[in-house]
Amino acid sequence: MNTTSLHTDRMRRFQQAGLYLVTSQALSRGRSTLEIVDAALAGGVRLIQLREKEMPMPDFLRLAELLRARTALAGALLIINDRVDVALAVSADGVHLGQDDFPIAAARRLAPDLVIGASTHSPAEARAAEHAGASYVNIGPLFPTQTKAWSGEFLGIEGLREVARCVKIPWTVMGGIKPEHIPALVQTGARTIALVTAITAAADPGQAARDLLALLRTGHRPTIASSSAGARAAIP
Amino acid sequence: MNTTSLHTDRMRRFQQAGLYLVTSQALSRGRSTLEIVDAALAGGVRLIQLREKEMPMPDFLRLAELLRARTALAGALLIINDRVDVALAVSADGVHLGQDDFPIAAARRLAPDLVIGASTHSPAEARAAEHAGASYVNIGPLFPTQTKAWSGEFLGIEGLREVARCVKIPWTVMGGIKPEHIPALVQTGARTIALVTAITAAADPGQAARDLLALLRTGHRPTIASSSAGARAAIP
Repeated sequence: MNTTSLHTDRMRRFQQAGLYLVTSQALSRGRSTLEIVDAALAGGVRLIQLREKEMPMPDFLRLAELLRARTALAGALLIINDRVDVALAVSADGVHLGQDDFPIAAARRLAPDLVIGASTHSPAEARAAEHAGASYVNIGPLFPTQTKAWSGEFLGIEGLREVARCVKIPWTVMGGIKPEHIPALVQTGARTIALVTAITAAADPGQAARDLLALLRTGHRPTIASSSAGARAAIP
Repeated sequence: MNTTSLHTDRMRRFQQAGLYLVTSQALSRGRSTLEIVDAALAGGVRLIQLREKEMPMPDFLRLAELLRARTALAGALLIINDRVDVALAVSADGVHLGQDDFPIAAARRLAPDLVIGASTHSPAEARAAEHAGASYVNIGPLFPTQTKAWSGEFLGIEGLREVARCVKIPWTVMGGIKPEHIPALVQTGARTIALVTAITAAADPGQAARDLLALLRTGHRPTIASSSAGARAAIP
């Protein structure tokens, strides 16, 4: 993979983030994505993907510029969904590409500094993305979700295991993830949990972020799966 | 406008092209855009915009790569519709942006080498595009056309005059242009005629290109408007 030391630094920070907020103004209960992101940053989120599929491009670029300023101040990474040109124009840290978006290999040639993520749903797609130069693959959707119309199967924990063991690059998980799933995901080796509505639709997005991050830290401990852990098993 | 000498060279060639083919596989009567472009290049076209709004991105990028190779061999300019990232990825000569596409100013900052075109429909839009750093504005639609759903007014020759005199940068014209319009357009000062179906839907796209280019050369002569020009007024 033809990347740079800036890419290495970005991936180091990516791997430390734990929680990966993907925005959706339509699923933010009337609040703006800017408000949600401000709350999430205050709550400790350090990895944010701007994804607003319905937004006209000029508005999307302006919002990307605003989020770039906010995330930079907070020391958080900003990933742009779908558009390599927007990621480059606002000096974002990365771009996330779906199976029908800009091809990974072309994006990698164009942008050796960028974190490039790929949405993958199967071992074959994950292997192809790694081979094409992706920095990470997202594996999903794991569970039924309202965020995305999806005609395929939901992977669940078993499907996740099967895809994750096919790649050497970092991977994230997404799709219908609720707090109660996190211990099992951490057990499976997940280091980075991507989610939309668990934060964007929360009554208090900042508190939701804090709770999820605390749960992730707890979940990292090898004892989490033990039902004798008592109080620690009480999930908010 | 913060551009480079490569940009200057590209604009020199742009100004010499005369005819500006905009592709549309959907309007190519069952033939591929690749076939149409090959025929148009053989017919002398030296300025091509790849515009395929319905095409999935991976196919669009592959087609852009193929057209880049073809146009480079023929010494023709290749402009990509809408996507700055695709233009950069395939080393195209430029990008053409609509009013709801990637903003001109951001594209100019990102790509000082690229020819950046803007679709404009009024004096205000044309002035704004020039101010934002566009290399050229397209003015249209001039006449009713099947290519584009359009809820605004058609500019006609008078509307064209009004928009064209607002800008100092080069301008092109588009929208329902048929061979019989060309003499009047040339009279109005048009140097570059953009069109889709006059070539893509022609029985013989290469011959259509040849005829249009010949007409443009004839049309450049100041005597063309004289009805006493006799045989010269016979338009194919």
